[in-house]
Amino acid sequence: MNYINFTEDKLRTFTYHIFKHMGCSNEHAKLATDVLIRADLRGIDSHGVARLSGYVRLWEKKRINTTPNIKIVHETATTATIDGDAGLGLVVAPFAMRVAIEKAEKYGSGWIAVKNSNHFGIAGYHALMAVEKDMIGISMTNASPLVAPTFSKERMLGTNPMCYAFPASKYPPVIVDMATAAAANGKLEIAQRAKKHIPSGWVQNQAGEPSVNASELKEGGSLLPLGSDKDHGSHKGYGLGATVDILSAVLSGANYGPWAPPFVAFLEPSANPVGQGLGHFFGALSVNGFRPAQEFKDHMDNWIKRFKNAETIHPEQRVIIPGEPEFEFEQERKAAGIPLIDVVVNDLNQLAEKLGVEKL
Amino acid sequence: MNYINFTEDKLRTFTYHIFKHMGCSNEHAKLATDVLIRADLRGIDSHGVARLSGYVRLWEKKRINTTPNIKIVHETATTATIDGDAGLGLVVAPFAMRVAIEKAEKYGSGWIAVKNSNHFGIAGYHALMAVEKDMIGISMTNASPLVAPTFSKERMLGTNPMCYAFPASKYPPVIVDMATAAAANGKLEIAQRAKKHIPSGWVQNQAGEPSVNASELKEGGSLLPLGSDKDHGSHKGYGLGATVDILSAVLSGANYGPWAPPFVAFLEPSANPVGQGLGHFFGALSVNGFRPAQEFKDHMDNWIKRFKNAETIHPEQRVIIPGEPEFEFEQERKAAGIPLIDVVVNDLNQLAEKLGVEKL
Repeated sequence: MNYINFTEDKLRTFTYHIFKHMGCSNEHAKLATDVLIRADLRGIDSHGVARLSGYVRLWEKKRINTTPNIKIVHETATTATIDGDAGLGLVVAPFAMRVAIEKAEKYGSGWIAVKNSNHFGIAGYHALMAVEKDMIGISMTNASPLVAPTFSKERMLGTNPMCYAFPASKYPPVIVDMATAAAANGKLEIAQRAKKHIPSGWVQNQAGEPSVNASELKEGGSLLPLGSDKDHGSHKGYGLGATVDILSAVLSGANYGPWAPPFVAFLEPSANPVGQGLGHFFGALSVNGFRPAQEFKDHMDNWIKRFKNAETIHPEQRVIIPGEPEFEFEQERKAAGIPLIDVVVNDLNQLAEKLGVEKL
Repeated sequence: MNYINFTEDKLRTFTYHIFKHMGCSNEHAKLATDVLIRADLRGIDSHGVARLSGYVRLWEKKRINTTPNIKIVHETATTATIDGDAGLGLVVAPFAMRVAIEKAEKYGSGWIAVKNSNHFGIAGYHALMAVEKDMIGISMTNASPLVAPTFSKERMLGTNPMCYAFPASKYPPVIVDMATAAAANGKLEIAQRAKKHIPSGWVQNQAGEPSVNASELKEGGSLLPLGSDKDHGSHKGYGLGATVDILSAVLSGANYGPWAPPFVAFLEPSANPVGQGLGHFFGALSVNGFRPAQEFKDHMDNWIKRFKNAETIHPEQRVIIPGEPEFEFEQERKAAGIPLIDVVVNDLNQLAEKLGVEKL
């Protein structure tokens, strides 16, 4: 497995042209590019340009509308439901978060449920939009069903990430951005490429038996909820996944549970949908609505400092602040460039050739 | 271990008199009793009358004020910070939730951070107050530090529960009410009484080594976050615990992280507090702010039905809907009474004798 290094600019230009080719407006292509590249910058490689050909395949299948009329279909002072018009989640999600932030500026908080959308990239991107305004940002989405509830062998929930982002003062923001499964798909893919077994507790086989096979999902198995088994609280991971599913999809009018449309284009969405497209949920909470923002951020600094100094088990370890590794990646990759594995580069160049876009 | 059965009324009367003896008003004594008895009814025995003598001991140490002046100290249209005036969390929390609900009735949502409070009982009680109004209820609290972050051996967070409650139509509400640790203290106590080992992944010893000793916490060990170890996502459980801590305490001005005051009266609170008392966080989201409530509740019924019918691994198993076991306990115990273990009954009767209240 070889890595090839690219500048941020190079990847941005490439990605922008792919989205333009798909028919996105300049503004939408720029925004979708920003969301994807931010994932690569932040070290969340599974959600960056590596997904580009997946979005293209969905667009080819006419499951993504690149000229969507994104609109508010239901609204109160601090809540709204948005119809994403089958647009790229990468574009629909920032639209929704902007509405949440506007409401929070006026009324202290804003809460948006989104239906009829698609995969929205990294949850952290959207939540961070609020943090820049001294707000607490919340973002979540449901996703293709891959996770089995406790005691079940059926794929009923997506890896359904939830993200909470909190502004700090001297330190970077605290960002809890996590799949509600024990391990997300990206980790399985890394083990597949390295031809390694995965730890027990990540997946089960088609019969619901424990498995360490990194390819188990391709053979009809399912991911396990955070907690892995009942003894270790898998009912909690299942409950969190359910929470994300209900807020994102039952509340908005999107497809929930096993009806959530698959991200991969070779699987068809349900013939009997219970809603429209995929669902998201966003929140913006103005810190000034609770206490002066600077006071909060100073205490956040103190919180971070104290947790950084928590006693470690082994001297060489450190206690990690949620969001810190991604922040460090971003500093490093902004300076030194973004490494992509050769498999991804080949995939992107084949895509470029097919679409008549300049190769990487 | 023997169980003695009591009627709900009998336990209510007893508990009410204890709170009255502590100096609570009739209204507060009734409310605090309702929160505690609801825990026993719902099968969450660790949070019911078994805790009564714990509250009394804190009151004896003057750490609970039974005549609090609970007040809003900061407010916007949809947010507020409440000072609990060192009152019983059992009383402060429903006060705060009522404010959240009033705001949601006017503006679609209401969000309340609470400082200067104490243990608030079961999170589900408060969240369910919103459900009765066709709202989504959210409640969380920080707690005595017992949980070590990933890679640490230091107790930095409480078991910090988060609760999300969703109304349904024909089915009982979906209630996700969970500690963010792999296993809460109550499960350790059950194993201690039964003189059994606990599963690996619940606790670590003082040196941060894996342990199956149910008494490990008494020997300086710590609870592990949901996920148990890094491979299985303990950084996620730690992130969730951190989220609850920040929303409940950093946002409100309460004590956070290792500064959170201990529930047990024999441990003193920090001599250098970073805030006031314990913190909570509550939310009420009006379903009608997103889509007509009946439409949402019909889809919730469909969600519940589909998950109940998910294929199980073993034929004798069933997929459990979050909140279902507690609902079943409540139906059963309302009819057949509440069983208490003899240790708890003895403890309560000693308390009664000391305070001059009629015994059970």
